[in-house]
Amino acid sequence: MIRFYNGKLLRLKGGVSMTEHEVWVEGSRICYVGPKKDQMPDFEREIDLDGDVLMPGFKNAHTHTAMTFLRSYADDMPLNDWLFKQVFPMEAKLDGETVYDFTKLGIMEYLTSGITASFDMYYRNDDYVRANLDCGFRTVICSALNNFDADPTNIEREYLKFNNIHENISYMLGMHAEYTSGLERMEYMRSLLDKYKTPFFIHCSETKEEVDGCIERHGMTPPQLLDKLGLFNYGGGGYHCVWMTDEDIELFARKKLWAVTNPCSNLKLASGIAMVDKMLEAGVPMAIGTDGAASNNALDFFREMYLASVLQKVQNMDAAAGGAEKVLEMACVGGAQAMGINDADDIAEGKFADMIVIDLKRPNMRPLNNITKNIVYAGSKENVRLTMVAGKVLYENGEFFIGEEPEAIYERVEKHMQEFRK
Amino acid sequence: MIRFYNGKLLRLKGGVSMTEHEVWVEGSRICYVGPKKDQMPDFEREIDLDGDVLMPGFKNAHTHTAMTFLRSYADDMPLNDWLFKQVFPMEAKLDGETVYDFTKLGIMEYLTSGITASFDMYYRNDDYVRANLDCGFRTVICSALNNFDADPTNIEREYLKFNNIHENISYMLGMHAEYTSGLERMEYMRSLLDKYKTPFFIHCSETKEEVDGCIERHGMTPPQLLDKLGLFNYGGGGYHCVWMTDEDIELFARKKLWAVTNPCSNLKLASGIAMVDKMLEAGVPMAIGTDGAASNNALDFFREMYLASVLQKVQNMDAAAGGAEKVLEMACVGGAQAMGINDADDIAEGKFADMIVIDLKRPNMRPLNNITKNIVYAGSKENVRLTMVAGKVLYENGEFFIGEEPEAIYERVEKHMQEFRK
Repeated sequence: MIRFYNGKLLRLKGGVSMTEHEVWVEGSRICYVGPKKDQMPDFEREIDLDGDVLMPGFKNAHTHTAMTFLRSYADDMPLNDWLFKQVFPMEAKLDGETVYDFTKLGIMEYLTSGITASFDMYYRNDDYVRANLDCGFRTVICSALNNFDADPTNIEREYLKFNNIHENISYMLGMHAEYTSGLERMEYMRSLLDKYKTPFFIHCSETKEEVDGCIERHGMTPPQLLDKLGLFNYGGGGYHCVWMTDEDIELFARKKLWAVTNPCSNLKLASGIAMVDKMLEAGVPMAIGTDGAASNNALDFFREMYLASVLQKVQNMDAAAGGAEKVLEMACVGGAQAMGINDADDIAEGKFADMIVIDLKRPNMRPLNNITKNIVYAGSKENVRLTMVAGKVLYENGEFFIGEEPEAIYERVEKHMQEFRK
Repeated sequence: MIRFYNGKLLRLKGGVSMTEHEVWVEGSRICYVGPKKDQMPDFEREIDLDGDVLMPGFKNAHTHTAMTFLRSYADDMPLNDWLFKQVFPMEAKLDGETVYDFTKLGIMEYLTSGITASFDMYYRNDDYVRANLDCGFRTVICSALNNFDADPTNIEREYLKFNNIHENISYMLGMHAEYTSGLERMEYMRSLLDKYKTPFFIHCSETKEEVDGCIERHGMTPPQLLDKLGLFNYGGGGYHCVWMTDEDIELFARKKLWAVTNPCSNLKLASGIAMVDKMLEAGVPMAIGTDGAASNNALDFFREMYLASVLQKVQNMDAAAGGAEKVLEMACVGGAQAMGINDADDIAEGKFADMIVIDLKRPNMRPLNNITKNIVYAGSKENVRLTMVAGKVLYENGEFFIGEEPEAIYERVEKHMQEFRK
């Protein structure tokens, strides 16, 4: 058993609460939350928080983890050149070994910014899962069905395999995007959803071109088309959701579909600014994601949270727009629920021990006028003292505990890139 | 003498260059830049860069350092409530002791994000200067003349005093803003500028209300009014510059006036997004600032640099807009020149030893596809391995060397805030 004591416990579910409760961890789960007890068990480790904050980890609700290899590979160029001339030709070179190493690099970066779970859509899921298991990280894979899949039935096999492989791994059904998928593929997806009665996720209304193209092809926006085809019959949601019409927002709110916002990626690729406040006010459930490193270029949840709030202020020209508490709840609670890992949405008995410690003894956290606002508006990776996933400390005081040394991973990553650039 | 070796030397002046040159420091200045020599002198310390990047420090070209005390004190509220109900009443409580401690807290935060000099406008400059000298930091003060100054002649006394106090300290003439200053004060400032033939800085066109109000009061925009009054006769520039007309931009380009952009503050206070690309294309010299912690809320140059580029992409709806190299040059070179500390604009013999070491052995810097883009688009405070100001290491591996322990400063800051909140 591991004991966290002598700190501030920050919980976000159902509103912000701050107590001085202890938290005990047994195996992969939390076994006690409350005041110090008279009778104490034997602990394997006792972590003195020394006044720091213990809180739920951030859930990265949309990403392509292995895309770390394209970080700063092709920036500051028009979107189509970036995608067709740079990203696609490089992705064609990926194999199992490289996906494994690039994924490990991404997981390391997640740990540095307090991310404890990812909602990932990419290639070569066997190797991706192996990297997550070897590191001890938690991930939910979303299938990326599209026109270019040689064998769409593989998705069902993956669905069954990865939902039964390990407590840290799960798999949800999804498609890449409307613009990469014909109606036939969408109908096949519908049949799978009907069979398993499970939510559906997709890149949705990310760019104006995507929405215009969908209207041209189908006479309606992506959310309306997907809904008409029955793809949202069991819930789910969309990644990005930048160019949502009032009707689309009403649909998401009515069906309780998750809108996952990716503010950094949407700025960097000049996609636009999502109407986060408008969606929240309409009752759309929301979460936050980093997207991949190719379009961000960091996997830094502090930057995403900051922008998820302050971009609303400038979009609405109102300094009262946005709001730190809501953003923190989206990051810690919303993300977990969107990904279907409700056991990671709170620090409570029986929940997964997916937690982070925020160091308050850094200048950017002082004075302690308001700790939640400090975390969202001034927080940075320097404040992540410890990241625990499934009861295991994977990152502490700048060091990684993921089964191998960072230098070994960096070396392999650079070697792969030398080959890729040839 | 201190020796930096075995790394990558990144210089920004006149274009990005990367070499493997060594850098030697004697006293407060750089005494050698070049390859390893056959005959080596005795060094007081030899710093093995171990492949990391040595580069010029970032210059924070607009800030109110002591405003750290209002971090997260009043967020997510309308601008006027924030300013009149929260900021002004709290500022009235400041005295010399509190300004000293709040300034030290700000300097600590600068050091964590690689900032080596600040261009500051605030109160109680004696105590502000004392904090900078005690920490060994470099600062340029800008006077904040406005209608509420009881004794405007104090500015001339400060100008003479602080320009002759220490190599790390200088003082420039400026006013708070058009909307806080009558014509009489502006004419007094003009007389000082004529006397000392020196540049002039001011908060300029930060909000639409400011510009509209100036047009109502004077029939022209703030830049046009200030120029007409002769305040820009010896150069200078403006802070923020969000709501610039084409005429204003043409004026700034023609007179080579500095536009200092503050992207985070402009988002958080819902002021708008400055037209950085448009100003650069017109030939306006530019620099970057954090503004104060009350409106940011961090003093984190990585966040500012990231946004100085990517906000241009979304503003112009063009992923090719912005650009990492230009932003880095604004941060390291432009800032120094705007502040009149040209000796801090490069790593070269005779220049100030104001330098930072960027740690490449963190996951966000890998792979090394493009180091300058990695720094701007993925960099964070975790990458600041060392910050040197005037030849002294003030921050290294997370530790501060500023004459006293962080805990002592935090303790005094929290104590002051308890008094202030009464």
